[in-house]
Amino acid sequence: MRSYQPVNFSEVEITGAFWRERLDCILTQTIPSQFRMLGQHGILNSLKLPRPVPPLTIPENRHGFSTQIFWDSDIGKWIEAASYALSFRRDAETEARIEAITDDLEAAQDADGYLNCWYLGREPENRWTNLRDNHELYCAGHMLEGAVAYFHATGRDRLLRIMERYVAHIATVFGPGEGQRRGYPGHQEIEIALIRLYHARGGTEHLDLARYFIDERGRQPHYFDAEARARGEAPSDFWAGTYEYNQSHLPVRDQTKVVGHAVRAMYMYAAMADLAAEDGDAALLSACETLWEDITTKRMYVTGGFGPSASNEGFTTDFDLPNDTAYAETCASVAMVFWAARMLNIDLDGRYGDILEQALFNNVLAGLSLDGERYFYDNKLESDGSHERWEWHPCPCCTMNVSRLLASIGGYVFSTGDRELAVHLYGGTRANVTLGGVPVGVDEVSGYPFDGAVRITISPETPVDFTLYLRVPGWAKGAALRINGVSVPLEVEKGYARLGRTWIAGDVVELTLPMHPERVYADPRVRQALGRVALRRGPVVYCIEDHDHDVSVAQMRLPRDADLQTEPHDALVPGMTAITAEAAVSRPPHSGMPLYSVEPPVTTPALMTAIPYYLWANRGPNRMSVWIRE
Amino acid sequence: MRSYQPVNFSEVEITGAFWRERLDCILTQTIPSQFRMLGQHGILNSLKLPRPVPPLTIPENRHGFSTQIFWDSDIGKWIEAASYALSFRRDAETEARIEAITDDLEAAQDADGYLNCWYLGREPENRWTNLRDNHELYCAGHMLEGAVAYFHATGRDRLLRIMERYVAHIATVFGPGEGQRRGYPGHQEIEIALIRLYHARGGTEHLDLARYFIDERGRQPHYFDAEARARGEAPSDFWAGTYEYNQSHLPVRDQTKVVGHAVRAMYMYAAMADLAAEDGDAALLSACETLWEDITTKRMYVTGGFGPSASNEGFTTDFDLPNDTAYAETCASVAMVFWAARMLNIDLDGRYGDILEQALFNNVLAGLSLDGERYFYDNKLESDGSHERWEWHPCPCCTMNVSRLLASIGGYVFSTGDRELAVHLYGGTRANVTLGGVPVGVDEVSGYPFDGAVRITISPETPVDFTLYLRVPGWAKGAALRINGVSVPLEVEKGYARLGRTWIAGDVVELTLPMHPERVYADPRVRQALGRVALRRGPVVYCIEDHDHDVSVAQMRLPRDADLQTEPHDALVPGMTAITAEAAVSRPPHSGMPLYSVEPPVTTPALMTAIPYYLWANRGPNRMSVWIRE
Repeated sequence: MRSYQPVNFSEVEITGAFWRERLDCILTQTIPSQFRMLGQHGILNSLKLPRPVPPLTIPENRHGFSTQIFWDSDIGKWIEAASYALSFRRDAETEARIEAITDDLEAAQDADGYLNCWYLGREPENRWTNLRDNHELYCAGHMLEGAVAYFHATGRDRLLRIMERYVAHIATVFGPGEGQRRGYPGHQEIEIALIRLYHARGGTEHLDLARYFIDERGRQPHYFDAEARARGEAPSDFWAGTYEYNQSHLPVRDQTKVVGHAVRAMYMYAAMADLAAEDGDAALLSACETLWEDITTKRMYVTGGFGPSASNEGFTTDFDLPNDTAYAETCASVAMVFWAARMLNIDLDGRYGDILEQALFNNVLAGLSLDGERYFYDNKLESDGSHERWEWHPCPCCTMNVSRLLASIGGYVFSTGDRELAVHLYGGTRANVTLGGVPVGVDEVSGYPFDGAVRITISPETPVDFTLYLRVPGWAKGAALRINGVSVPLEVEKGYARLGRTWIAGDVVELTLPMHPERVYADPRVRQALGRVALRRGPVVYCIEDHDHDVSVAQMRLPRDADLQTEPHDALVPGMTAITAEAAVSRPPHSGMPLYSVEPPVTTPALMTAIPYYLWANRGPNRMSVWIRE
Repeated sequence: MRSYQPVNFSEVEITGAFWRERLDCILTQTIPSQFRMLGQHGILNSLKLPRPVPPLTIPENRHGFSTQIFWDSDIGKWIEAASYALSFRRDAETEARIEAITDDLEAAQDADGYLNCWYLGREPENRWTNLRDNHELYCAGHMLEGAVAYFHATGRDRLLRIMERYVAHIATVFGPGEGQRRGYPGHQEIEIALIRLYHARGGTEHLDLARYFIDERGRQPHYFDAEARARGEAPSDFWAGTYEYNQSHLPVRDQTKVVGHAVRAMYMYAAMADLAAEDGDAALLSACETLWEDITTKRMYVTGGFGPSASNEGFTTDFDLPNDTAYAETCASVAMVFWAARMLNIDLDGRYGDILEQALFNNVLAGLSLDGERYFYDNKLESDGSHERWEWHPCPCCTMNVSRLLASIGGYVFSTGDRELAVHLYGGTRANVTLGGVPVGVDEVSGYPFDGAVRITISPETPVDFTLYLRVPGWAKGAALRINGVSVPLEVEKGYARLGRTWIAGDVVELTLPMHPERVYADPRVRQALGRVALRRGPVVYCIEDHDHDVSVAQMRLPRDADLQTEPHDALVPGMTAITAEAAVSRPPHSGMPLYSVEPPVTTPALMTAIPYYLWANRGPNRMSVWIRE
């Protein structure tokens, strides 16, 4: 069912300044610093079995749960990100680090293949007794993804073979057969990893196991009920209160609302899309489409974040999108990019590309500081000045999720069919692909996302017929197209301009995506955005920070008729564009205004400077707002 | 230093419909139902020692703390409220209940006088080892207040004598003397109770102990540090993170900001005012005035609630007053009434009366349902429909705080000096006081708070010179005065009209407080109220609820020029006045509006009906808002 094949990031050269800067930062700062942090916080050491293991460094929460339980996954994600770095440039030190981790895992692995270092070290008698809460399969999934990435980058397969043994063990434990446990992950992730393993090494049993986990989920009698009883607990004592939390409240094909823990949901939907593509499973794809419609029309921030609540790290009710308490976990938007890319390769539709871009340029990028070493776990849309980036977190999942996505960002730019080349993202990338059997060079040059002039040079070895699909974002009004300097009518179908012809070396396509600062409004059922306006230019959502003002941005107001201007603002990132306007600031009517008064505040003019949301809090914490009062 | 003496509630007859209804409800529904709840939830049984005691019914929180630890206080507050009911009408059943509780306390009391049923039953070896967290002195205070009230109502002093023995024991344990502990309560309350005991029975040692607790608080070396070390804990591990939580971060006279747990703060300030009055302590009074200024100009909701944060049940930062997550605990506003009344009797200033009224008619009354048997602990100013009144609470402090205040509401109406009579609240009350040695009847008739026409008949036995002070609320613009039918100029000084003359029987004073629906605005630094307006009529703050509309109130907008009307709205309370206006509702510009769009919402007209805030959620949970977009 998959129509398009993504062009792997390792085949894509990043040439544009915007992504080059972020990528260099990830490769040179973020990934090495993350390894240091994994060391400093005892995470690497946690693989060093046998027992006795040291006391917990992260205390249990009130549910008796320590986030140390998923340290294996953090290491797995770091291996994945570091392997992407190796794909760009082999590096003996990084490889030695991964080999040392592999040594530890090899020593820790049980004779039967089992390999979860928390359980092996701390409670070997309890393995597989609490899939609902304890992340065993999730950890296996992330380590497996890391092993696949390392194998791709280096050809070394020792870690991958260790993980294959573990996967083989898991396949004996779980399934519908006699004597097997009919369980599935409490935190989805391994499904994606198994499909990656299948793509890397073949073996339909991996696909079968992924399919089993997806199909079994939410069936009655409920596995997590039985598992709780076996632990001597009442199923109704589940701390989260509902199986919506882990999306096991219903079989996946019957799910129509995005609910519960946002990261779990996104990983599951991505796996569902993968499986729908592999199996040509129309019912599964249809469930994905329904869920997509639900989140994008009712449950998503303008920044591409979602899951507003800290209490379940996830979804609440339709149109409930609070700004100052927004959770909007970085990981969830990273996983949304995974899901959107999978949907896009099944069905080339700009609605997937638009959301991918919205999440990527806003909520995802906001998760990492400009210096590449500080993070946001939750991405608020309004701050009173108390919200700060942190250097590390008791649950460092988001750190490596950002680095593994951004290190492989080139993989989200192009997809190919037999005689189709689709371009989803712009910003300066070069690739060599094969279309109709002919090697074709593609060189896209642009200052995207701050400049909308995109120039693509096509260089087939010999003239070849194929169709070039260029995404025309939903925000782009009045886009224009020229081929070899000649204007051609731009016809956009499902978000893509379709250009079929016989391409010859040196053909140049110029797509102009006019970038004007725009006002964006929310559906009025989003009460937290009502009476307010957000600013957007191209794919980038803006915010206002106190740093650029001598008044409190909380008191600023942008009249509907104020003219929006743009100007360069190089203080943060070269080439960055700020949006400015003559705004107003609300002030007390006179100096003795009491806390409450029948006299309304007055407004005085103030110049407003808005910067890209993803760049906020890079000059220290301060007041910030995405939604500005009109 | 106290200039005025409040006229005790037992001397004041409530004749007006507004308070009569609430008082009857408290006496006939609330207080009896609270006794049933105390029984059903095992609270009464917790007094039945000796050990072994039953397992906890309220589990410990993550700090190892169960709210059962202050069950003694809940019983004490119930005794206090029930005793106020007995002051109106003796009742054998209620007295038998209190006598049975007294039997339990008598049996439980240790030979040395110690009497805390949690410690006696569960950890007798640990008494006085954790004043910081474990509410021992707080429990003693509430039980003592109950005992004083019961003694006043019935003349029975068995419970009071038990508590006097306990107080005598406490006085030996705590103090600056050799071998004494230099401790003080982690949760203030006993200071107020000790001063009440002093008023009831004399004995300067009670005043001395109260003064010691106030004076010792916050001194260095810090008692809670030493106490934590004695328990083998690091003082820095204090779960609340700061001694601001219990206002022991500084000596009380050095405190200038209201901080920490809101109820603790208010009880402490009330005790400070009491002590300042007793001792003529200008420094202590000055600290009260500074703290008063701080809370009323920076940290209070328009509803008279405060303490916005659930995490510390208290204060955050200046002007941080979120609506949908407002904590604004009922108990805190009840205690604000206590504090305000004490300040008013030291310094007859309408600013104290205005805040007393603001808290009382809004945040306090909101804490109790119309049927008198359901409660709000936290009083949000905006609800998405999920916030509901509850029948009981793991921490039922607010329930009995509302009943003890409202059962004694008559005590907040009048104060007297030698030849001064001050009237603070209106609504239909009658009292007999003595002024210049002459018995004087006062009969105040009004439909307050929904009608501002106040008629007061003065009936001295013989003509007598005295000054009548009538509070003219800050909101009352254009108030007018007539004496015996003749208009007289109204001169207001510090919030009171001052009428000095020789009064004779049948003199009639008519005060007209024009009640127009008004728009109220917050200081623009309150970002959560900016661009929004609240409605107020007289002392009553209004809100809009979905129940009165066929559109979502979250989408309503009240243009600044919309005319505000009033109309009777008898569905909830007879005589209640609603505020109506031609408002507008924001709707999508067309049916296919996506979640985010460059097209702003449109507005269509909608009739808005606002009801008093304190009456919200009496027709089931639903959307509600106090601050309405303009």
